[in-house]
Amino acid sequence: MIVVMKTHCREEDTQDVLTMLANHGLRGHPSRGVERTIIGVLGAVGPTATPGSIGGINPHLGETLESLPCVESVLRVSRPYKLASREFHPEDTMVEIPVPCISQGAVRIGDRGVVMMAGPCSVETEKQLMTTAQAVRKEGAVILRGGAFKPSTSPYGFRGLGEEGLKLLAKARAEFGLAVITEVMTPSDVPMVCAYADILQIGTRNMQNYMLLDEVGRTRMPVLLKRGMSATIEEWLLSAEYILSQGNPNVILCERGIRTFEKMTRNTMDISAIPLVERLSHLPIIADPSQGTGSRDLVMPMSLASIAAGADGLLVEVHPYPDEALKDGAQSLTLEQFERLMPRVLALASSIGRGLITPSRGQQPHWASPVAAVPCSL
Amino acid sequence: MIVVMKTHCREEDTQDVLTMLANHGLRGHPSRGVERTIIGVLGAVGPTATPGSIGGINPHLGETLESLPCVESVLRVSRPYKLASREFHPEDTMVEIPVPCISQGAVRIGDRGVVMMAGPCSVETEKQLMTTAQAVRKEGAVILRGGAFKPSTSPYGFRGLGEEGLKLLAKARAEFGLAVITEVMTPSDVPMVCAYADILQIGTRNMQNYMLLDEVGRTRMPVLLKRGMSATIEEWLLSAEYILSQGNPNVILCERGIRTFEKMTRNTMDISAIPLVERLSHLPIIADPSQGTGSRDLVMPMSLASIAAGADGLLVEVHPYPDEALKDGAQSLTLEQFERLMPRVLALASSIGRGLITPSRGQQPHWASPVAAVPCSL
Amino acid sequence: MIVVMKTHCREEDTQDVLTMLANHGLRGHPSRGVERTIIGVLGAVGPTATPGSIGGINPHLGETLESLPCVESVLRVSRPYKLASREFHPEDTMVEIPVPCISQGAVRIGDRGVVMMAGPCSVETEKQLMTTAQAVRKEGAVILRGGAFKPSTSPYGFRGLGEEGLKLLAKARAEFGLAVITEVMTPSDVPMVCAYADILQIGTRNMQNYMLLDEVGRTRMPVLLKRGMSATIEEWLLSAEYILSQGNPNVILCERGIRTFEKMTRNTMDISAIPLVERLSHLPIIADPSQGTGSRDLVMPMSLASIAAGADGLLVEVHPYPDEALKDGAQSLTLEQFERLMPRVLALASSIGRGLITPSRGQQPHWASPVAAVPCSL
Amino acid sequence: MIVVMKTHCREEDTQDVLTMLANHGLRGHPSRGVERTIIGVLGAVGPTATPGSIGGINPHLGETLESLPCVESVLRVSRPYKLASREFHPEDTMVEIPVPCISQGAVRIGDRGVVMMAGPCSVETEKQLMTTAQAVRKEGAVILRGGAFKPSTSPYGFRGLGEEGLKLLAKARAEFGLAVITEVMTPSDVPMVCAYADILQIGTRNMQNYMLLDEVGRTRMPVLLKRGMSATIEEWLLSAEYILSQGNPNVILCERGIRTFEKMTRNTMDISAIPLVERLSHLPIIADPSQGTGSRDLVMPMSLASIAAGADGLLVEVHPYPDEALKDGAQSLTLEQFERLMPRVLALASSIGRGLITPSRGQQPHWASPVAAVPCSL
Repeated sequence: MIVVMKTHCREEDTQDVLTMLANHGLRGHPSRGVERTIIGVLGAVGPTATPGSIGGINPHLGETLESLPCVESVLRVSRPYKLASREFHPEDTMVEIPVPCISQGAVRIGDRGVVMMAGPCSVETEKQLMTTAQAVRKEGAVILRGGAFKPSTSPYGFRGLGEEGLKLLAKARAEFGLAVITEVMTPSDVPMVCAYADILQIGTRNMQNYMLLDEVGRTRMPVLLKRGMSATIEEWLLSAEYILSQGNPNVILCERGIRTFEKMTRNTMDISAIPLVERLSHLPIIADPSQGTGSRDLVMPMSLASIAAGADGLLVEVHPYPDEALKDGAQSLTLEQFERLMPRVLALASSIGRGLITPSRGQQPHWASPVAAVPCSL
Repeated sequence: MIVVMKTHCREEDTQDVLTMLANHGLRGHPSRGVERTIIGVLGAVGPTATPGSIGGINPHLGETLESLPCVESVLRVSRPYKLASREFHPEDTMVEIPVPCISQGAVRIGDRGVVMMAGPCSVETEKQLMTTAQAVRKEGAVILRGGAFKPSTSPYGFRGLGEEGLKLLAKARAEFGLAVITEVMTPSDVPMVCAYADILQIGTRNMQNYMLLDEVGRTRMPVLLKRGMSATIEEWLLSAEYILSQGNPNVILCERGIRTFEKMTRNTMDISAIPLVERLSHLPIIADPSQGTGSRDLVMPMSLASIAAGADGLLVEVHPYPDEALKDGAQSLTLEQFERLMPRVLALASSIGRGLITPSRGQQPHWASPVAAVPCSL
Repeated sequence: MIVVMKTHCREEDTQDVLTMLANHGLRGHPSRGVERTIIGVLGAVGPTATPGSIGGINPHLGETLESLPCVESVLRVSRPYKLASREFHPEDTMVEIPVPCISQGAVRIGDRGVVMMAGPCSVETEKQLMTTAQAVRKEGAVILRGGAFKPSTSPYGFRGLGEEGLKLLAKARAEFGLAVITEVMTPSDVPMVCAYADILQIGTRNMQNYMLLDEVGRTRMPVLLKRGMSATIEEWLLSAEYILSQGNPNVILCERGIRTFEKMTRNTMDISAIPLVERLSHLPIIADPSQGTGSRDLVMPMSLASIAAGADGLLVEVHPYPDEALKDGAQSLTLEQFERLMPRVLALASSIGRGLITPSRGQQPHWASPVAAVPCSL
Repeated sequence: MIVVMKTHCREEDTQDVLTMLANHGLRGHPSRGVERTIIGVLGAVGPTATPGSIGGINPHLGETLESLPCVESVLRVSRPYKLASREFHPEDTMVEIPVPCISQGAVRIGDRGVVMMAGPCSVETEKQLMTTAQAVRKEGAVILRGGAFKPSTSPYGFRGLGEEGLKLLAKARAEFGLAVITEVMTPSDVPMVCAYADILQIGTRNMQNYMLLDEVGRTRMPVLLKRGMSATIEEWLLSAEYILSQGNPNVILCERGIRTFEKMTRNTMDISAIPLVERLSHLPIIADPSQGTGSRDLVMPMSLASIAAGADGLLVEVHPYPDEALKDGAQSLTLEQFERLMPRVLALASSIGRGLITPSRGQQPHWASPVAAVPCSL
């Protein structure tokens, strides 16, 4: 932290700041220039303080200093997150997910192979889910997505089948050997969703539902943390830090578009967040072009763009009859579109030296060549 | 709902849409123009469907229609909220809050008198809270704010004293006759917070925490619903609809700034939301210039601007020693600043034909004139 | 400027930065902490460099330093504008405009009296302009607005009457004693517009049309500089700096709304920009609630809010038959609405210790009381 | 256009609207539903009106209707641009640029081959430009970028060498056989820039400088139109319409990032704009990942993402010594980075069935294989 004093402040003001810092257990190191004094602050601020402890160092100290009349501004030097940062943890984290249809029995998200998660926005009926699961498995997906608890902007919208939906997801897993990702919306549902899912999804509206983050942090389940629709990258990594700081290292980030002034798309996918997160953090990151665009016609180009920018996987909505979907039909791919998508994802991944993880037990995707499809590296 | 067909679509396409509408229990009324056909859709869509019912009419029907190849666009005509709308409920809603320091025993938010809610961002110590409560009571506030559960962007930040904080708030109420507003962050805490508070606050990050909205909707407690930092006004009113549709009519809206590209303020207060909400909804609306700006120097002008635009009250952070605040010190008014604010709020409110509700039992604000301070109209 | 070195950089890296600074004529002052080194940079960067000089100090030096591998970040301490800053010029600037209908012959924008500028968005016909001018004069406006050159998003929209429109404005001035404000869109039109107008308006789309800013800077005409619809406050003040640095001190700022995700209003008026600019700059600032909201029903509350926040005046669209307006009819007040607005502006201004400047020669507004209407302080 | 009447409006209100439409030469077609009446409006609105004609149909008619008390809303059905739309012009437009280093003598932007435009942000010295031109030519670029007129946020920043810079660009073209793209900032400079450049660039701040658009529209020079930093896609296409409607068909669009709340990147590249524009318009579109991100480390992944999403080319800043650049050094690639970029662009383009246009006269890029590099299809 650096405290910049105002141009004409006096030596006493500087001493006041030094005293205030000392009261917080910090040592200031003033540099007195011709025009103004700046004070470098040494010692821990932020992440190294004991989590949750009110007796520890105050993470709001910067704001407080900034409100002193003699202080021009306070500049933060260190990143406010630690466990999520690449500085602290230089090697890539790979999150292992058990996947029955893979010979090795698991995939590692964040490794060289791109992972496809596909399925309906919401679980609606057994037939809808099974048809979709079979189709996406056949085309090469290894993880099935499907919402049993759905956030709906309107109280009159479809809010999901609840536990009944979770049971259908488990049934699809048993039948097709796919891992299952599904959303959990409130702390008290965490044990129930853990009982059925392989990956817990935290939705965009819950990225700052801190009690939910605490709760999934207390499990050791893989957690896919979607970016809040108006969250900065720093806030997103701080939400990951919530989960990590509870002891759960299995966090996967997911870019799903941010809210901007542009009205033609539901959100604006921030593709640059993918390489940026790769630089700032060791956590894997995937992309959700369905939510990110809101339009099925944009899913293919944005899937390819996400992989080109370095995404470790995709989360894509697929529906056998999107015109009858109870939710988000307009952004769901048809089965035909998904069929066309997969070989293109593989071709693109190959062009940047990556591969696509595909089922290796039982029937394999018809388009898969033994060279191009990456064997899971477990 | 209006379905606009593409320029060169055929009569069969129109028939397909009509059939699809019929399958959803709706009647379409086509107008065949020279260039294109448009189909007016009569019958209930959205709010009038049975809440939560999956068998009811699909609120996502519009999106589904829009994804048909022959459909250019689908235009929604009706507002998606009903109970929150002024169309459905033309008279102003006034939310009654029991306030011991008022002769009538209560204030009505949404009535002619402007209501001041003031206090620290977080409850930190008994001394801090009591000092602040006494001071704001003396200057004319009738409701005490203070967080016992605090959302913190960082897991290492101060997250509030919890139930201990609630007890201190109750103690301050007993001592100074102020009503108490405090935040509730998760469904399982609702009963506990109800036991201590007079108004439940839903924070900006929880505006779309639907299970929390359901839960406070099942009480009959007054609920202050802050606008999500990136929520449209329509989404905000839909969140109010969640609470109303559970049977709780006591909803107060609170504009607290939205996220924009401007970096000099913490948020950009959308003052125009105040008159807009007044037009669209019967619910009262107040403003939070502390969160809205993030800077104590801007609280005074933005308080006055909010009242000028029609706000029914203000929610203002005040701290006796803001430099030592554990949270948001930079945006908290000092006691002196609060003292200067109150008579100006009164003067401004008077100039637009409103008044300021002030304590009428025990000691009254020194600056209050019997003419200017509005007697509570109960 | 402060250069923050990376945690593990070596002493040679620090020396490299010091050398690089020396090559730019700057002296660095390193503070070597336990964890990292920070370098305070003394000497002039930015505004004090010779304007336009490529041989001077490079204002992009910060970016360049930041791209060095050993540098974590570069923190700017000084504001990048100088002539526009209150630091450099502590007293309020008042811009004097000649107004025939005022006894003193002029008004001073930025003084205690609020100034009303009103008229049609575009000059359309002589009848339309004269009717409006007479009406707004009668109700108390002292400056007539009206566009002769109009930016239109579509090439098929109305782009203004050009010089013919300017002539009509001059005629209205002669007849009603109002000053005239009108937009200039391109450098080559500046002399022509100067010949007819009292204030040159730079529109939101031209806030960063630097050659136009240079050109109006070379005149000594009062210039009203609207904020760009996506300009930060800093960029806006830098655009003012362009005009000031050419020698023209007569700059008036105008907040007119920024672009955000909210769709219910045409723009989101950033009311907090008004007190912020007052703190950062000595230049007067007015508000445009017509452009700022896009809806005539919001003009009254947002006018009052702007004055409450400290605006020195208002720029309001008024049209005698807004339903027939060639441009922006939906945001133009009717004459009746304008008539209702004026006494409320006066009442509000009075409540915060300001007044409203009204015509003092010839017929005066029927509602004006000698006490409330502020005599022009020239 | 569709006019939606309010729920309880009377038949006379509907008649009033029909009359108003008739006065504008339009025929309304009312559908009277149980709940409300909607009026379909047949006949031309917008693009088909005579450009610039005040006597033609008023493009603001919608707004005017919307402000009637009996009208709920007015819904636009047709797109407001015509010449730029794919509806009106279904085949892809390819813009031909003369390039001496190509055997065919020209490239076609919008064809199967991806085109690389590279060079410094600003032309600074002969040595800097020639070194860069030689290097980017050697690595496979066919168009040289470089600014002679530079918009600078600060009046104290580097604003370019002017005509001297243009002469240097022409010299580089003569020496290396590259085409030249450079910015023009004001109408009066258009003839001079045309004398030296092969493509006129309209910068982001000038996207709505309508007199400049008119002026370049009156030439037949290829124009690269950058998206305004806060422009919607519709506004961008309307600005293209300005140029097209003056008779110049040679418009290339360029996505360069939009302004959002995220602070870690200079702008947020809206990659989804690339496939969207492809759907809405026949004009070619390229991407500028240097401006789009502001950080050289993000240029490679965002270049690949842009091509994956369908961009027809890239505009990339390259500087031989970026640490000494007078402008935007932090976002300029080094020559080594550019060298690494080119083969990856080719590999990615090939994976989606496209190629990369490279010099075919004289020395060819060392990495180019005869299969992969696409022969120009002229």
